[in-house]
Amino acid sequence: MSPEFELIRRHFVRADHGALLGPGDDCALLQPGADLELAVTSDMLVSGTHFLPDADAWRLGWKSLAVNLSDLAAMGAQPRWVTLALALPEVDHDWLQTFSGGFFACAERHGVGLIGGDTTRGPLTLCITALGEVPAGAAIRRSGARAGDDIWISGQPGRAALGLAVLQGRATLADATDCIAALEQPVPRVALGIALRGVASAMIDVSDGLLADIGHIASASGLAARIDDDALPWQALRALDADPQVARAALLSGGDDYELLFCAAPGRRDALRALATSLALPLTRIGGMAEGAGVHLIDAHGRELPIERRGYDHFG
Amino acid sequence: MSPEFELIRRHFVRADHGALLGPGDDCALLQPGADLELAVTSDMLVSGTHFLPDADAWRLGWKSLAVNLSDLAAMGAQPRWVTLALALPEVDHDWLQTFSGGFFACAERHGVGLIGGDTTRGPLTLCITALGEVPAGAAIRRSGARAGDDIWISGQPGRAALGLAVLQGRATLADATDCIAALEQPVPRVALGIALRGVASAMIDVSDGLLADIGHIASASGLAARIDDDALPWQALRALDADPQVARAALLSGGDDYELLFCAAPGRRDALRALATSLALPLTRIGGMAEGAGVHLIDAHGRELPIERRGYDHFG
Repeated sequence: MSPEFELIRRHFVRADHGALLGPGDDCALLQPGADLELAVTSDMLVSGTHFLPDADAWRLGWKSLAVNLSDLAAMGAQPRWVTLALALPEVDHDWLQTFSGGFFACAERHGVGLIGGDTTRGPLTLCITALGEVPAGAAIRRSGARAGDDIWISGQPGRAALGLAVLQGRATLADATDCIAALEQPVPRVALGIALRGVASAMIDVSDGLLADIGHIASASGLAARIDDDALPWQALRALDADPQVARAALLSGGDDYELLFCAAPGRRDALRALATSLALPLTRIGGMAEGAGVHLIDAHGRELPIERRGYDHFG
Repeated sequence: MSPEFELIRRHFVRADHGALLGPGDDCALLQPGADLELAVTSDMLVSGTHFLPDADAWRLGWKSLAVNLSDLAAMGAQPRWVTLALALPEVDHDWLQTFSGGFFACAERHGVGLIGGDTTRGPLTLCITALGEVPAGAAIRRSGARAGDDIWISGQPGRAALGLAVLQGRATLADATDCIAALEQPVPRVALGIALRGVASAMIDVSDGLLADIGHIASASGLAARIDDDALPWQALRALDADPQVARAALLSGGDDYELLFCAAPGRRDALRALATSLALPLTRIGGMAEGAGVHLIDAHGRELPIERRGYDHFG
């Protein structure tokens, strides 16, 4: 193995991997807890498709892990372990050190150990597989919604899409700081996901856009989703003085927020309000599930509004 | 989700995934067996680095999975589940169907279920994470060799490198069929890896080259490795009428064979010969481990031979 390759490896080896055997052998070895199920998710991020080639390396390191932890959160799983495969056009140790700084900042915040992976030459591409634990039978799937359930959303969806619009020159905001942070350094809702075990009937993280993602729950659950336009969390976006059209598209169809979108029985409303307080995270009730199919956006007068663009598709 | 995206997904969804929940949700869900450890490995394969852009799609699908199953085999683990992330420059359903045919041929042969993954637009890149099970404490690491252990190699290392030399016009063979198959459709030594639990003290699969890979065992075990040049399995390569220099480099330093290279106490020789017979797979004793450091190639007169090139390094 060349000295260069050893150096790359060194950027990514930490002692606190939480596994029986970490990087450096043919495989890592884990011992999942007894009576736990393992949740597994993989994402590939490609330069030019998912991030700009000149993206800040620290934030890229953070975000590449955060989006995978968000998938674990959306099942109600506790993140535990992660592998990272990295293709690089050339060895740039400054970039690698900064990237791994952001990656490990996110990993340490969530108690996740990097147990292995791969480095190779190629166009800048990241592939992360994240593993989490959830008590047997407690995972929250997309398919569990029941007719009559409320639909809830965490935090402030739309901020990441507004941040992207600012960076692309399509919008100006009074203060874009929070929106750009939402885009470049999203915070996976791990504590919320775990707290929703036994409470939420179905859950997904908002990565394709709110309407697209509630459509995934509706389809997997064999139900219709009704979103009450007036109930959506518009206030925070309006306070940013964004163009109303841009703000509307951002909230309804913007991806990359990684907020949790979930269903729960009406009897859970008080518990969810208390949870929002204890986590200091807004939870907004935005509609309900019903017999039928599809996603229906309803105005204050009960009229159905047209849905123009449901979300983002890399092959769309 | 666009119809195109749905179609891509359809190429990779099979019912027999062997998991509690397969592709289509935020995560897959597994239930690892009680008292088992989980072995995890990730590899990224990039067009132009690991395979030619016009590589046969079926064989690429096979090989991309086989190399990961080989890492599981090298720990003595039973392959169980796999995720596949795929970046594609454009949607080509013929290519995808052929690729997935090869992928699932290898998966079904080894009882592995595809539980999830990702598809996105980008330069052709594959990233696979494979998970296998091994009884607690039974995994065979690189670091377990003891002074006095024999060194063994399975099968016929060097064939894949000769196949590559033929394809690149650097060699001609009487019959290149087996060598090209060894390169393009390697067979992971899963049954051998499992049979070596409790027998081998240390193990690795030959991916960087025989001398490089025994170097990894020597270094991880804090020992020296002595390879007896005359004991290496030269006969089969010589029978191919390859240029002797090319054949020598292929066996000593050629990567991509995915044979298992392992150490075992001398008291295991009879058991290993019986195992070779029962698996119909040659096992050749090629040297031994000793106090010291490094890899030493020794000729029939006990003289140390120079080692020119140890193996392949993507950043070398």
